[in-house]
Amino acid sequence: MPAISNKGMAMPESPIRKLVPFADAAKQKGKHIYHLNIGQPDIKTPVVALEAVKNNNLEVIAYSNSAGSASYREKLAAYYQKHEIPVTSEEIIITTGGSEALLFTLGSITDTDDEIIIPEPFYANYNGFATSNGVKVVPVQASIENNFALPPIADFEKLITPKTKAILICNPGNPTGYLYTKEEIEQLAALVKKHDIFLVADEVYREFAYDNAKHFSVMAQQGIEENAIMIDSVSKRYSMCGARIGCVVSKNKTFIQTALKFAQARLSPPTFAQIASEAALDTPESYFTEVIEEYVIRRNTLIEGLQQIKGVKVATPKGAFYCIVELPVKDAEDFARWLLEDFDYQNETVMVAPAAGFYSTPNTGTNQVRIAYVLNKKDLGKAIEILAKALEVYPHKA
Amino acid sequence: MPAISNKGMAMPESPIRKLVPFADAAKQKGKHIYHLNIGQPDIKTPVVALEAVKNNNLEVIAYSNSAGSASYREKLAAYYQKHEIPVTSEEIIITTGGSEALLFTLGSITDTDDEIIIPEPFYANYNGFATSNGVKVVPVQASIENNFALPPIADFEKLITPKTKAILICNPGNPTGYLYTKEEIEQLAALVKKHDIFLVADEVYREFAYDNAKHFSVMAQQGIEENAIMIDSVSKRYSMCGARIGCVVSKNKTFIQTALKFAQARLSPPTFAQIASEAALDTPESYFTEVIEEYVIRRNTLIEGLQQIKGVKVATPKGAFYCIVELPVKDAEDFARWLLEDFDYQNETVMVAPAAGFYSTPNTGTNQVRIAYVLNKKDLGKAIEILAKALEVYPHKA
Repeated sequence: MPAISNKGMAMPESPIRKLVPFADAAKQKGKHIYHLNIGQPDIKTPVVALEAVKNNNLEVIAYSNSAGSASYREKLAAYYQKHEIPVTSEEIIITTGGSEALLFTLGSITDTDDEIIIPEPFYANYNGFATSNGVKVVPVQASIENNFALPPIADFEKLITPKTKAILICNPGNPTGYLYTKEEIEQLAALVKKHDIFLVADEVYREFAYDNAKHFSVMAQQGIEENAIMIDSVSKRYSMCGARIGCVVSKNKTFIQTALKFAQARLSPPTFAQIASEAALDTPESYFTEVIEEYVIRRNTLIEGLQQIKGVKVATPKGAFYCIVELPVKDAEDFARWLLEDFDYQNETVMVAPAAGFYSTPNTGTNQVRIAYVLNKKDLGKAIEILAKALEVYPHKA
Repeated sequence: MPAISNKGMAMPESPIRKLVPFADAAKQKGKHIYHLNIGQPDIKTPVVALEAVKNNNLEVIAYSNSAGSASYREKLAAYYQKHEIPVTSEEIIITTGGSEALLFTLGSITDTDDEIIIPEPFYANYNGFATSNGVKVVPVQASIENNFALPPIADFEKLITPKTKAILICNPGNPTGYLYTKEEIEQLAALVKKHDIFLVADEVYREFAYDNAKHFSVMAQQGIEENAIMIDSVSKRYSMCGARIGCVVSKNKTFIQTALKFAQARLSPPTFAQIASEAALDTPESYFTEVIEEYVIRRNTLIEGLQQIKGVKVATPKGAFYCIVELPVKDAEDFARWLLEDFDYQNETVMVAPAAGFYSTPNTGTNQVRIAYVLNKKDLGKAIEILAKALEVYPHKA
């Protein structure tokens, strides 16, 4: 049989999907599962976006511009400007999801065996994108004790080598829910400027900032115009995960020209989804107010509920819709599987994502899970109740 | 300024897009351009596909299955079976265009510095996909004299090294229009089996086979079930280039499991486009009959017209909608630019794609262009007339 590549063999399996077969088996037995494991919001997509697709008059679904349609990029630039992110349409390339934006970025700034530094825990697919580019992820550990705030700059600096090409952050963070302060971004800015490397910020959860905290973009940070690369997406902002529209944004012209060559090779981003995404920019502000209010209710329900379970430690998220929870168990993956296979409370159970897959340091976060609060308050309350009952009877406690 | 990667710098610019700024300038001066340079058909997308998108009732555009929606894959497998390609839905991964299918394939079967052998001229973006994967393209030259038929198997075999992971063909060929015979596929099959490497066939133009010739898929070739990988797309079949739906198909389970890990990292293919693609499978057979008839008319118009121009040599295409044309000029790229910048006939000109970008051997195909016959008969006739007039007065003839 012809050989699979080393790269292909090294590609990590998604930590979220690993448990799917157990969930499927549980469902087959008629067990109801509360899904706390995935970042698929139940929030409705804005009607303006859906209507634009339904009312489209295209007769030929032709290739669009490799950089994305000009009208969409212009409207998107205006959106950013309104949100104090001073960029023009020429500084934007529309991509097939934030995923492709990350792939273009890694392709443009890294070669095989190069390194990128990422505070961990981090979005698990960064591992996959790094592996597929032959790039090494160098983690800097953030800690649940201070809500996963930025680790000390000295911790980053001591890891920088000639192979380090970028620091990658997710802000607000998936899976931590941590929202970096302006001061933290300034510290990172000084560091990347000093070492002449890139600062890549995955800001796809930008709108999800709570408690009157304000998101501060790397694109708004002065002095790092040549270093800053922003990854964005419509997936979470408009609950349009399946559209697959994102973008990569930078004021560094050489970088954008390089990323565009990757974009040209794959021809164009999807047309229908661009129509939806452009129209989504007309979503009334009230949509976000309601969505944010809803997420704050969910977050409060979740955090207050978790804090009442004995032995549970949780970092309070200030943004996005995830949190990392430390459980009084030896092995969170075993616990998550047990929840699906062996446990039920009134024929219901919960599914959580074991957090070890969000760390790249081995044997780290093994007693943690990621919880996504994408269920309504009532379901979330029920899910927490089930989790509490489960922890009472789980046999392999820490 | 932070450094761009070597890979990023090596990424080729599309040979088709290089001339776009000159075309834009010509248009600004009011010159009309007949576009023979791009593979964007003017054929209408099937109404069933467009209607399905317009009639969708989704309220949340959620992530779909990373492998593509189950219903689409099942219907697609049935389509293949009807066309004598015996595959099941588990052997299919839906991708974002044929482009992504190729990227998943290269990621799954090659590591940095590995080699793939490709008959040249070939689809120019193969260079980009290879570069972005750190893979070396090893060309085997096909010749215009025999319509770009498969080069002798000995020519392939002498290039096989321990680093060779696959032979990649495009069938029918872009840019050659050549349709491989069953015997040619059998020869390749024996070779890949002997050397235990993959045979990757880009069959996105499968339906476009003329003169009663029948397309023969690598998936229908017995004995290479573990070696054969098929790349497919809805782009050309249903004139849905902008949808960005393709797929990768193989009976090799390990390969599919590996490709799926790449698919999971990028989450899912676009939802609206999957709806369109699934519905497109209900396109009535008459659509294809009409489309093929139309392309045969266009091909005949083009080839007969070109054959009457002195000094022009053309390979007669049996499939797809491209041909490679040898011109009596020293440098086809200079000629193509001159057509846009310095020439007009009654304020009209033509745009062609210089063919050198479709070769990976340096200084090859420099007197050739690729012509896409995606214009109607009348426009095509006009374009040929303009080309003939241009060749009369072009100052740098061969």
